[in-house]
Amino acid sequence: MRPTIPVARVPIDLGDRSYDILIGTDLLDHPTSFDDLPRARDAVIVTNDVVGPLFSERLSVTLRSRYDRVSTISLPDGESHKDLATLNTIFDSLLERGADRQTTLFALGGGVIGDITGFAAACYMRGVPYVQVPTTLLSQVDSSVGGKTAVNHPLGKNMIGVFNQPLRVITDLTALQTLPQRELIAGLAEVIKYGPIADEAFLDWIEAHLEDLLRRDVGALTYAIKRSCEIKASVVGVDERESGLRAILNFGHTFGHAIEAGLGFGKWLHGEAVGCGMVMAADLSTRLGLVDPASARRLTRVIERAGLPIAGPALGVARYLELMRLDKKAEAGAIRFVVLSGPGRADVRTAPDELVAEVITAHTR
Amino acid sequence: MRPTIPVARVPIDLGDRSYDILIGTDLLDHPTSFDDLPRARDAVIVTNDVVGPLFSERLSVTLRSRYDRVSTISLPDGESHKDLATLNTIFDSLLERGADRQTTLFALGGGVIGDITGFAAACYMRGVPYVQVPTTLLSQVDSSVGGKTAVNHPLGKNMIGVFNQPLRVITDLTALQTLPQRELIAGLAEVIKYGPIADEAFLDWIEAHLEDLLRRDVGALTYAIKRSCEIKASVVGVDERESGLRAILNFGHTFGHAIEAGLGFGKWLHGEAVGCGMVMAADLSTRLGLVDPASARRLTRVIERAGLPIAGPALGVARYLELMRLDKKAEAGAIRFVVLSGPGRADVRTAPDELVAEVITAHTR
Repeated sequence: MRPTIPVARVPIDLGDRSYDILIGTDLLDHPTSFDDLPRARDAVIVTNDVVGPLFSERLSVTLRSRYDRVSTISLPDGESHKDLATLNTIFDSLLERGADRQTTLFALGGGVIGDITGFAAACYMRGVPYVQVPTTLLSQVDSSVGGKTAVNHPLGKNMIGVFNQPLRVITDLTALQTLPQRELIAGLAEVIKYGPIADEAFLDWIEAHLEDLLRRDVGALTYAIKRSCEIKASVVGVDERESGLRAILNFGHTFGHAIEAGLGFGKWLHGEAVGCGMVMAADLSTRLGLVDPASARRLTRVIERAGLPIAGPALGVARYLELMRLDKKAEAGAIRFVVLSGPGRADVRTAPDELVAEVITAHTR
Repeated sequence: MRPTIPVARVPIDLGDRSYDILIGTDLLDHPTSFDDLPRARDAVIVTNDVVGPLFSERLSVTLRSRYDRVSTISLPDGESHKDLATLNTIFDSLLERGADRQTTLFALGGGVIGDITGFAAACYMRGVPYVQVPTTLLSQVDSSVGGKTAVNHPLGKNMIGVFNQPLRVITDLTALQTLPQRELIAGLAEVIKYGPIADEAFLDWIEAHLEDLLRRDVGALTYAIKRSCEIKASVVGVDERESGLRAILNFGHTFGHAIEAGLGFGKWLHGEAVGCGMVMAADLSTRLGLVDPASARRLTRVIERAGLPIAGPALGVARYLELMRLDKKAEAGAIRFVVLSGPGRADVRTAPDELVAEVITAHTR
C-alpha cells in the first residue's frame, strides 16, 4: 500500500477543462500526486537554473515511476527571459528529443516558468498536456488558477499568449521554505489582493495573521493559498475568457504593469509592482468617491506592513499614462481601471486623466 | 437598399465556435459579406507582398464602411517566411498601431497567410477575432475549414501552432482568376484528396470535370470548393482536435511533409508534395493489401492529369523515414500513415519499414 499524505484540494470547475489544485507538504515526492494523469512515454520538466537544482531531481525520481523517459529543460531565470526567443528554445528542445503529442510538460518554478511552459504546451504540435508545479507563493496563489499563459513583448507585458488550462496544479509547500524573503513578500501582494476585491473577511484574517505568513507558518500559508485559489476560481469560473468580471483580478495591475514596463521588466518583482499598484488604485477609488479614505488607508497599511513598496518610481505622469494605454484591458485607447467599489467589492471603469495624474503624483517619488 | 449577390454558404457547425464559409464572385467588394461581424474600432488586413497589391485596396475600401481605422500589414511572400520571426513582426505591428482586444484581423492570402494570421490572432493579447479571406484554391478548400493555425520550425512543418476557428471565411472566386497555374494545380491536389478518403462519387466528378477546373470555369470551381469544404467540415465536426478521424485529412501528407522538409520548405508547393504523397500513400495501401492496385493506378492517373508530380525527390529511404518520424501524427516513434481502406474510405495505421522503403524506392527518382 502506498503511503497517503494530507492534501488540501481546490477543484477548479471549468467543464471539460476542469482540474484540481493539490496543496500539501512534500507532494513532489509522492507518486499519488501524479495519479490519473494521461499515459505518455515522455515527461519533460521545464524549470530554470535557480529552481531546477533545488527540486528537479526530486520531481524526476517520482515521475520515473510513471514515464519511460523523464528529461529536464532548464531556462535562464527571470522575467527578462520570458520572451519569444526563450519560448522557441523550449520548442527546439522538445523537437530535438523527439517529444510527441502525448508528451506531458511539468512547469517547475514560479510564474515565469508557469506562463511560458503553459504557452509552450498550448503551441507545441498544437497542444500537449501540462501540469503546474508552482514553487513561489505568487505562482501558487495566482498563476495556478485561470489558465493564462504568455510571454512579454518589448512593448508590453504578457502581450503574447493564450488561455490554456493545466491538467493539475501540484502546490508543494516545502518549496516555500527556500524561497527568498523578497519573493515571499511579493507573493503576499497577490494574497492581500483577494481581500479588498472579493472577501472583506479574508482581509481581516490577513491583517491578523500577517506575521505568521511572513515567518512561513505552514498552517497559515496553507489557508492563505487555499482561500486565494478558491476566490480566484470563483471569479474565473464565471468568466474564463476575461470578458467582464475576471478583470477585477487585475486590481493594482494597471498601475503595476506601468511600473514594471517603465523600469524594464525584472527590476521590480511583479508582486512588488502590484502592491504599489493597489495603493494607487485604492487612492483612485477614493478620489472617484467610491470608497471612503479610511478603506484606502487600511489597505495601504497592510501592504506596508507586509514589506511591500507603497510609492512608485518617478517615471512622470505622461509616461505612466502612455504605458497604461497599452494595457490589454484598454479599449479604443481608454484605460480601464479596476477600482474598489465597497468592502470586498471591485469594479472596472475609466477615470479622467486629471484624477489619474493626481494619483500618480501623490504616490511616486 | 444594398445590392445582394449570389453566395454559396457552407455552415461549419462547431457549437459556440460555429461559422460560415461564403463562396461567390466579387465578395470582397460587397459590405454584406461582412455583416454581423462584432464591432471594433480597428480592422487590420494581414497579407503578403504578392497578394496585397492585387486585393488589399479593394478589401480596405469595403472594410472602411464598418471600421474607424483600417490598416494593412504586408509580410514577405512564401512558406520560408512562415516562422516565429515573421509571426513576431505581426505582433510588433499590432502593438505599434495600438491594436486592442477587439481588433479584428483579416487574413488576405493563401495558406501561409491564413495559418500565420490565425495563429497571431490566437496569441495577440490572448486572442482577438479573425476572418479568413483565402485567395488560393488550396487555402479555399483546405485551411478555411478546421481552425488549424501554425508556423514552421527548422525541425518540422507546422510544429508550432494552435487550433483557432475564424469568425467567417470569405471565399472570393475572383481571386482565382489571377492565380498562377502552378498554384491552381497545387490546390487541385487537396480537392482530389477528398474523393478517395471520403466520397468516391466526388472523385468521379473530379475525373469528369478536371479540364473545366484547369481552365478555371467558375461553376466547376464553386462546386469543387463547396464540396471540399463540406467533406472537410463533416470530418472536422466529428473530431475538432484531431484525436482520431480527422487524421484521414492528412492523406498524402506524411510522405508529402517529408518531401517538403527534405528539400527545404518552399521548393515544392505544399499541394505538389501532397499530390506526390498521395501516389505513395495509395501504393502503400495496395502493398498492405487494403485496396486493389487498380484504385491506386486510377488515383495516380488523376493526379498526373492534373499536372501534379507523381515521383518524389531522391532523398534516400533513410532520410524519408527520419523525416516522417518527426510527423505530428507519429506516436512513440512509430510513423502513422493515412491509407486507403476501400472506395471513398481511409484509415490510419503503422506499416513495416521495409514496405515503406519499397514505396519510397518505387516513387522517387
